[in-house]
Amino acid sequence: MKELEERIRKEGKVLPGSILKVDSFLNHQIDALFMDRMAAEIHEAFKEDRIDRIMTVEASGIALAQCTAMHFRVPYVFAKKAVSGNIGSDVYVSHAYSYTYGRDYEMVVSKKYIHDGERVLLVDDFLADGRAMRAMIDLCEQAGAEVAGICACIEKGFQDGGRKLREDGYRVYSLAIVQEMSEEGIRFA
Amino acid sequence: MKELEERIRKEGKVLPGSILKVDSFLNHQIDALFMDRMAAEIHEAFKEDRIDRIMTVEASGIALAQCTAMHFRVPYVFAKKAVSGNIGSDVYVSHAYSYTYGRDYEMVVSKKYIHDGERVLLVDDFLADGRAMRAMIDLCEQAGAEVAGICACIEKGFQDGGRKLREDGYRVYSLAIVQEMSEEGIRFA
Repeated sequence: MKELEERIRKEGKVLPGSILKVDSFLNHQIDALFMDRMAAEIHEAFKEDRIDRIMTVEASGIALAQCTAMHFRVPYVFAKKAVSGNIGSDVYVSHAYSYTYGRDYEMVVSKKYIHDGERVLLVDDFLADGRAMRAMIDLCEQAGAEVAGICACIEKGFQDGGRKLREDGYRVYSLAIVQEMSEEGIRFA
Repeated sequence: MKELEERIRKEGKVLPGSILKVDSFLNHQIDALFMDRMAAEIHEAFKEDRIDRIMTVEASGIALAQCTAMHFRVPYVFAKKAVSGNIGSDVYVSHAYSYTYGRDYEMVVSKKYIHDGERVLLVDDFLADGRAMRAMIDLCEQAGAEVAGICACIEKGFQDGGRKLREDGYRVYSLAIVQEMSEEGIRFA
């Protein structure tokens, strides 16, 4: 998506540790209308498919999930990151790792909000090593739901999350794939 | 908002500790199109006002903020709950309390995404004792921004957050005000 690549180039900041900071429009301040245009691209790519539900993980996936779900006119669910003891027994649980907090966490979703036989589209702001997506896939599998596709605004193509998911047969759709980045610049795939 | 009251009556679960669980449509599974209708009501109420920015706090306020910001055609920012040491020096910090986690937390927003002189509309899924709203007000004041209004999907009218905010002169707009609730039923204001 050209518009996204241009904004990443213009506003993105490359920080040590392969961090791409795009908090001026994607995950702290959010350009709401642009978010909706990104969701429209995802809808365009998957509109021939049967999508029963959108799934994401809190917090920075929620904006994209809200817009994507509106385009498909389906509900969405956001998996919660559990850091306390407030996990009920009526949930599916998987495990992921947070770079922000430097520790593992449990990702949970209520059994009421994901169902056997549903076709689920996973969306998130970033796809890097793929651990958050793998945890969502795991939650879908526990429920007997089928992953219809995996969408990210920005894929870090220099990490192997997207490549491995594609090798495993998932349909992965990223609106921008950063192939290389450094303080000197960003190269897209 | 009649539609919201009806859904709360139909799907809401009253749990011990004054908890109203509405995670079938508001803050875990989300009815995306209904969320947008709620945002449209907020826009209708404040459309004559000058609103430069929407503000919320992660995670469950983000969906409403996304939709509200689209109606106003302005950017939004979501304050982050900091539980780790990853707070930079370029942020405003306030303090709030999480019932979910049973502890205080720091609420932060980058100084880049809230500005002197802006008129900011605060939105969140719930307004109960008002602590999260007070923390957002504090962040706005630190930035020199003006709070144009305070909006919630559901206000717990039996707690005093909304009343005190109104007494302090804020324009508080809640789409549904729960005046009383028990396992027997829910009464709206």
